[in-house]
Amino acid sequence: MKDYREILEAVHHHRMSVDEGVESLRHLDVEDLGFAQLDHHRSVRQGFPEVVYCEGKTPAQSAAILARLAAHGQGPVLGTRANERVFELVKESAPSMQYDPLSRTVFLKRGISSPTGNVAVVCAGTSDLPVAEEAAITAELMGADVTRITDVGVAGIHRLFAHLDTLYKSRVLVVVAGMEGALVSVVAGLVHQPVIAVPTSVGYGTNFAGVTPLLSMLNSCSSGVGVVNIDNGFGAGYLAGMINRMGISA
Amino acid sequence: MKDYREILEAVHHHRMSVDEGVESLRHLDVEDLGFAQLDHHRSVRQGFPEVVYCEGKTPAQSAAILARLAAHGQGPVLGTRANERVFELVKESAPSMQYDPLSRTVFLKRGISSPTGNVAVVCAGTSDLPVAEEAAITAELMGADVTRITDVGVAGIHRLFAHLDTLYKSRVLVVVAGMEGALVSVVAGLVHQPVIAVPTSVGYGTNFAGVTPLLSMLNSCSSGVGVVNIDNGFGAGYLAGMINRMGISA
Amino acid sequence: MKDYREILEAVHHHRMSVDEGVESLRHLDVEDLGFAQLDHHRSVRQGFPEVVYCEGKTPAQSAAILARLAAHGQGPVLGTRANERVFELVKESAPSMQYDPLSRTVFLKRGISSPTGNVAVVCAGTSDLPVAEEAAITAELMGADVTRITDVGVAGIHRLFAHLDTLYKSRVLVVVAGMEGALVSVVAGLVHQPVIAVPTSVGYGTNFAGVTPLLSMLNSCSSGVGVVNIDNGFGAGYLAGMINRMGISA
Amino acid sequence: MKDYREILEAVHHHRMSVDEGVESLRHLDVEDLGFAQLDHHRSVRQGFPEVVYCEGKTPAQSAAILARLAAHGQGPVLGTRANERVFELVKESAPSMQYDPLSRTVFLKRGISSPTGNVAVVCAGTSDLPVAEEAAITAELMGADVTRITDVGVAGIHRLFAHLDTLYKSRVLVVVAGMEGALVSVVAGLVHQPVIAVPTSVGYGTNFAGVTPLLSMLNSCSSGVGVVNIDNGFGAGYLAGMINRMGISA
Amino acid sequence: MKDYREILEAVHHHRMSVDEGVESLRHLDVEDLGFAQLDHHRSVRQGFPEVVYCEGKTPAQSAAILARLAAHGQGPVLGTRANERVFELVKESAPSMQYDPLSRTVFLKRGISSPTGNVAVVCAGTSDLPVAEEAAITAELMGADVTRITDVGVAGIHRLFAHLDTLYKSRVLVVVAGMEGALVSVVAGLVHQPVIAVPTSVGYGTNFAGVTPLLSMLNSCSSGVGVVNIDNGFGAGYLAGMINRMGISA
Amino acid sequence: MKDYREILEAVHHHRMSVDEGVESLRHLDVEDLGFAQLDHHRSVRQGFPEVVYCEGKTPAQSAAILARLAAHGQGPVLGTRANERVFELVKESAPSMQYDPLSRTVFLKRGISSPTGNVAVVCAGTSDLPVAEEAAITAELMGADVTRITDVGVAGIHRLFAHLDTLYKSRVLVVVAGMEGALVSVVAGLVHQPVIAVPTSVGYGTNFAGVTPLLSMLNSCSSGVGVVNIDNGFGAGYLAGMINRMGISA
Amino acid sequence: MKDYREILEAVHHHRMSVDEGVESLRHLDVEDLGFAQLDHHRSVRQGFPEVVYCEGKTPAQSAAILARLAAHGQGPVLGTRANERVFELVKESAPSMQYDPLSRTVFLKRGISSPTGNVAVVCAGTSDLPVAEEAAITAELMGADVTRITDVGVAGIHRLFAHLDTLYKSRVLVVVAGMEGALVSVVAGLVHQPVIAVPTSVGYGTNFAGVTPLLSMLNSCSSGVGVVNIDNGFGAGYLAGMINRMGISA
Amino acid sequence: MKDYREILEAVHHHRMSVDEGVESLRHLDVEDLGFAQLDHHRSVRQGFPEVVYCEGKTPAQSAAILARLAAHGQGPVLGTRANERVFELVKESAPSMQYDPLSRTVFLKRGISSPTGNVAVVCAGTSDLPVAEEAAITAELMGADVTRITDVGVAGIHRLFAHLDTLYKSRVLVVVAGMEGALVSVVAGLVHQPVIAVPTSVGYGTNFAGVTPLLSMLNSCSSGVGVVNIDNGFGAGYLAGMINRMGISA
Repeated sequence: MKDYREILEAVHHHRMSVDEGVESLRHLDVEDLGFAQLDHHRSVRQGFPEVVYCEGKTPAQSAAILARLAAHGQGPVLGTRANERVFELVKESAPSMQYDPLSRTVFLKRGISSPTGNVAVVCAGTSDLPVAEEAAITAELMGADVTRITDVGVAGIHRLFAHLDTLYKSRVLVVVAGMEGALVSVVAGLVHQPVIAVPTSVGYGTNFAGVTPLLSMLNSCSSGVGVVNIDNGFGAGYLAGMINRMGISA
Repeated sequence: MKDYREILEAVHHHRMSVDEGVESLRHLDVEDLGFAQLDHHRSVRQGFPEVVYCEGKTPAQSAAILARLAAHGQGPVLGTRANERVFELVKESAPSMQYDPLSRTVFLKRGISSPTGNVAVVCAGTSDLPVAEEAAITAELMGADVTRITDVGVAGIHRLFAHLDTLYKSRVLVVVAGMEGALVSVVAGLVHQPVIAVPTSVGYGTNFAGVTPLLSMLNSCSSGVGVVNIDNGFGAGYLAGMINRMGISA
Repeated sequence: MKDYREILEAVHHHRMSVDEGVESLRHLDVEDLGFAQLDHHRSVRQGFPEVVYCEGKTPAQSAAILARLAAHGQGPVLGTRANERVFELVKESAPSMQYDPLSRTVFLKRGISSPTGNVAVVCAGTSDLPVAEEAAITAELMGADVTRITDVGVAGIHRLFAHLDTLYKSRVLVVVAGMEGALVSVVAGLVHQPVIAVPTSVGYGTNFAGVTPLLSMLNSCSSGVGVVNIDNGFGAGYLAGMINRMGISA
Repeated sequence: MKDYREILEAVHHHRMSVDEGVESLRHLDVEDLGFAQLDHHRSVRQGFPEVVYCEGKTPAQSAAILARLAAHGQGPVLGTRANERVFELVKESAPSMQYDPLSRTVFLKRGISSPTGNVAVVCAGTSDLPVAEEAAITAELMGADVTRITDVGVAGIHRLFAHLDTLYKSRVLVVVAGMEGALVSVVAGLVHQPVIAVPTSVGYGTNFAGVTPLLSMLNSCSSGVGVVNIDNGFGAGYLAGMINRMGISA
Repeated sequence: MKDYREILEAVHHHRMSVDEGVESLRHLDVEDLGFAQLDHHRSVRQGFPEVVYCEGKTPAQSAAILARLAAHGQGPVLGTRANERVFELVKESAPSMQYDPLSRTVFLKRGISSPTGNVAVVCAGTSDLPVAEEAAITAELMGADVTRITDVGVAGIHRLFAHLDTLYKSRVLVVVAGMEGALVSVVAGLVHQPVIAVPTSVGYGTNFAGVTPLLSMLNSCSSGVGVVNIDNGFGAGYLAGMINRMGISA
Repeated sequence: MKDYREILEAVHHHRMSVDEGVESLRHLDVEDLGFAQLDHHRSVRQGFPEVVYCEGKTPAQSAAILARLAAHGQGPVLGTRANERVFELVKESAPSMQYDPLSRTVFLKRGISSPTGNVAVVCAGTSDLPVAEEAAITAELMGADVTRITDVGVAGIHRLFAHLDTLYKSRVLVVVAGMEGALVSVVAGLVHQPVIAVPTSVGYGTNFAGVTPLLSMLNSCSSGVGVVNIDNGFGAGYLAGMINRMGISA
Repeated sequence: MKDYREILEAVHHHRMSVDEGVESLRHLDVEDLGFAQLDHHRSVRQGFPEVVYCEGKTPAQSAAILARLAAHGQGPVLGTRANERVFELVKESAPSMQYDPLSRTVFLKRGISSPTGNVAVVCAGTSDLPVAEEAAITAELMGADVTRITDVGVAGIHRLFAHLDTLYKSRVLVVVAGMEGALVSVVAGLVHQPVIAVPTSVGYGTNFAGVTPLLSMLNSCSSGVGVVNIDNGFGAGYLAGMINRMGISA
Repeated sequence: MKDYREILEAVHHHRMSVDEGVESLRHLDVEDLGFAQLDHHRSVRQGFPEVVYCEGKTPAQSAAILARLAAHGQGPVLGTRANERVFELVKESAPSMQYDPLSRTVFLKRGISSPTGNVAVVCAGTSDLPVAEEAAITAELMGADVTRITDVGVAGIHRLFAHLDTLYKSRVLVVVAGMEGALVSVVAGLVHQPVIAVPTSVGYGTNFAGVTPLLSMLNSCSSGVGVVNIDNGFGAGYLAGMINRMGISA
């Protein structure tokens, strides 16, 4: 926690009073918008700026936070679960922002060096594409070179096998599946790289809006699988992006 | 319902009074042991004698029912979830009964012509063997030629592929799996025969004693799958035995 | 897996290089529409072409896949959970397609010889009809002669008994029920044929959108029952169609 | 609430001071054993003395409460879920108490006029007998003439039909079933009397220790069914006993 | 089963052939509307005509069934969960039908002698009124004199105590409650009559659409309680009506 | 229970007959609106007037009850989950009522002395604000001085630490969080005051509409936490208001 | 966070180097036993020393931690869910420790001034006593004067009413109930003090080991209720003890 | 899939017949022990030999598989959930195997170069240690240098902060927690490395044997978290070991 040490040293050298230091610590890179506390320090602490989850916020709130993030930093900006209205509003003050309607992400590709490493985003069915694309865009914003493999569910397993070389060449895989989620076990049994599993809410009846593939992935008989929340493409892309950078950016 | 018609005709021809007929209908092949009503008529109605589920009965009760079934008919006899004590007791009066400790079944192979057709019982892991064996023995008692394929879980999918020819040659498949149950989707995606899926309670944590593979099998992205209760090897073997006879015994 | 052997033999006889063979294997009968990988090989592998589950796809996507399937093969085509818009779009390029609004299926009856065997689709209540009809149409597309028995729930059990002869004459039964699903146990206790049970989401409160009849069917005290997912009329019709062909088409 | 009125009138006529009255109200027929407050007033208020649920109490506690109830009143005494030790202890001070090991009930038949009306206790399988017997003994202690019908599960529905006359002659029915609990719907569809349904924890896997028959009974397509907790034979017998007395004792 | 005996006797006396008898049995009072099998025999078998659950049926289907029931019998007619459109349609052919928008019931009061006995319908809160009224109307159609007690939840328990005399005077009580459903335990602890408990889906969060009051009622520490499905006012009114008639109509 | 004693003394001194007293007790401060029983006595019994939960009531019903409460007493009035229509209607007869659209509360600040003590309402994210504000307004109506701390989720824990002094100065804390609800454990581990935890339905997938933070809060490894229902800001504010008054108002 | 300020001031005044300060902060009152980090600082931070939850620890581990706490501080010591073996071991080094076998608590009453305020621990049934006693002992260790009210479940509600004066005199109530937990709603509807509700795992079947009373308490129609985890007597006693001190110790 | 290509090339060059090649493919590195198919090829395919999950296998079966793995390869060997009997048996033929009773792992440290990178295994409480140690040993067998941080639950969050430097220095973190699992969100909010979260079954009541921390971790408001099954220390250690090697071993 380097920043706290800086403040401590300032106190030590009497460049700062004890009270001032406490005050500094408190407001350290926290910006208050009234309805939200922006955490600008996060890009230092975690290597990626705060991401805005737009569901449950008004379009105006989402757009204001995104615009502030675009204005403040040098890194990428990302808003997830954003509708078109958010994009329209944020575009006014941050015209370089982009929108992907499939994954419902608003983003700014900024401060990203040329893509490195490789993240494979493997997707069981056409209906899983929105979640897969959210993962892919997130990983790209984290600097990854992303390969998309689509519609390779285990009902016709030879479709997956046609992509084995691509799987073997990636550094980390994101596997996105609804229904019974068996694709994760099959893929993780074939490769020796980390697999980030994303259950989707695609299915009906006892699928229970994604609970079945989630349980399936948590109980995979194949090793090397980490699971994220149902439909959490962002979370998977973020974790994959983190892992992809290892040994590259270091 | 031929038997009722016989009684009706006896009434019609005055070989039987109305009251006698009603009485006959009531006691038609139902034998009362006090604590259980034996349904001897079942082998006519359903093509297989009543099966005794021994859990929740005392060994003495189970043995008495099994002995009575052995003494009464000409067909096979089957008791499931039986401990050794049941076998010891039933052996006294029915010495030709057999016991399989792995599947905990007590049975009498009787009245079965030479095995016909083929039922493949495919099993994901070593821990699933008791359930798989209950299915296999049941199908054998129904006249099937059974092939057992063991320990071919999807974590090492080439183990399954080494048995593809056997899968293709069977008339119906029973697939037994715990953990996440993905084996069912993979097998059903490869074959064009009916697949009877049996989830087992093998696993821990969010396996929830077999609920996860059950849900996985019910949501399989592959078609042609019928599912039975968790650990219900008997039910799967019975249904597979029924299907296996089709077009053979008819 | 005959096709792979063919390729291997081509490699053996040097009619094909190793690299060409690998390439051939990969693209073997997989057609890429961008958003979906069509599995034309499936009708060889599984005896029925790929079926399109239209929920979660846009009408345009569904129609495009269905039209491609209609143009490619000689067998039947089936789309489930399709709304009228899908039908309107697919009709443009495949005018012989039909639509059944009750079951929401789009289909093409093609390459089916005269109906053989018999599948009885038994339905507990009027509200279960959409699911039952999906099962019936699917079984018909697989070549079955289907008998529909409607509104015979156990609250008035004599309604079921009036159809006993029909039940006895079928080769396999599909039983469709919501509420508490008791019809399955009663039917399976009366017949000696395989019963495919379909729970429906008809009911309220603790019916939990079909979970209650599902559990009821999985725990049936009658033997010979295989269960499919809630509201999965297609899955039941498909499995019944498979079983119905046994001993007939072989 | 006659007793409170009595006290009020005593206050009115100055036979009792206000403070005495409050005190009287407080201790009105409540006897304090230290670890339990006996509710002797209950037999007046509800027509049956307090029943002792022995699970979760030490045998000594259970026996002490039962002995006190035996010594205090003139009516019947009942303890449920009692092991043999409770019976041994209570017998010392109340030698006329009886014990039924099947249902694990300790009871004293006292103050019951000759049995009236008729309660039919219908039981699906041998394993359900302990719960059924708890219901039967409870109804008998409430003055009912009880008929027991055993092992008539729907897998062999003709076994039930052999008892139709008995069902029709009862005033109220208790139906006890585990597995999928379909017996309740079949019975309630046949009769025009109230049916009290008792799910039991008999079954395995997705039976979920009785949840499946409970849900099945709550969703019965037949009318006229009231459900009690899983394995609650006492509750069903009590409610049936209450209903049975209507129009008889009044 | 008097009717079957009649047929048997006709067969015995050769007034009917065996084949005719079988035919008669099958079509005995079952009328086929195509999408529904009417069970006219039910009013003989169960003392009340078939009730139409309109949810999941089209208004046209519901109205057709209701109209047919109105035209056929002499007893009351009842349709539940009916919207105004059902009423408009059925009114055309059966102008004496009535509609209650609060409980969404369509009904015909016919063949009911003057109300007898007394059913108290006790309701915890204003939001529970639709369910309570469904119970009340059903019991009235079964001939009961119904007393409605409203908004007496346990948060202000003295509101309930103000109605104690009414509770004591009823023959059977229906208690309707959402939230935590504690009213059932309090009422059943005060009275000695049967209590039919109806959980409602009134509440939020962990109420889980009525699961909480359902569980609360099934686990009531007070005896004499039978529970019906969530929001099943009809089921409770029907059972209460059945019980209320006991000792009166007999 | 002073009021009952008053009545008893009136009976004692013959200022009131026994019958009159019973009548007085029954109607004691209960006002009947037909569809609701107002409990005016509650402000004496519980120190706060009845609160109107408007969901599930028509706007007209809600407004009528609120207007009656405004007209009757001298204390504050509160309606929760009220839409704008309720406010429009109640304003007509009670123009001093206020409406907060964020928390959807209608209220009248009346009879509240200057705010005392301090309740801190701590909120994890922007989306939790409606629930937090419902808690804050409720506590203010109970006389508390409320401090709002917003958007201090544990993903950036230094944002919370910036408010430590405020946390330490409050008498009781309300902590509002969705997602995984970890904020409760962190806050309760830092302070020595009572913490009232409110899970919100903010989240998706396995959040299960607030079940996850609820379970998290119930299992907190920190002591001194009481939990209320999901989204129950009112309940938390009420309990906090109660606790805040202790040692102040006494 | 006074202690951190002290260190900061030491750094400011150069009585401590920056590195020493960081080190001090890290080891501030944390004592490392190898398998556990003792948090002695807690009694300053939270007003009560760390409590040892003995389940899941070996008796030797539990005893070692308890002995260390007894040796270190001046305040009370508490271990919950402790078996007799823990007590035997800890007694060796800390002979003044006491053991209560009913609640399975090991404790040392030390540093507690004479009991102040009043906490009422109200308990529905005899089987709930262990949990209630854990709450009572905890509250006593926090300085409260505790009144125990036992066996006052709502099945005989007059038993509760006999204790109304005691309820009214307490500052805060702990209500402990299993089964359906209705006691909480009744008590909270009668009093104006905070109610801490503790569901217990007493019950069977759909009680689901305490889930039913938990849900019942979370959905209470009475206000002013905070709920703790199932069987968490300690948590309730701790929270009640905290609240009881308010306005007294301050 | 290099090995298959080798076989293809052998076929191409006629060093192998087509039939021999098919046979080779099938038995490729699969060794059949009768009850288990060993997957020796796995260490090539996935970089780590097959791991033996001993629960549900007999000690003799587990020991036989482990001994075979020890005899066959050059890499490490690992058996999880093994009791002492497994160790005794395997030691006979493989004396260099070790046993850790805390985590119940049997292992052979072989073929591991000097530890590289750093995996921090962070553990919330003493009761979580067995799961944490299983993770730590697994990661060590995969070549990681592991740092163990114990008993740093969020109830005393300064205990965690004392280890911040260690957290920052690791390449990947495994966080193990039961109760409410909040530690994961706090840690993941502080670091920028991948966090593998392991819920444990430590807790009671609504902890539901680990479901609560699982849900908490899946819904973490902090990014960069992958979750494994409850108590799956092995799975977490394996995934962490995989990630730790990235950029080091490549």
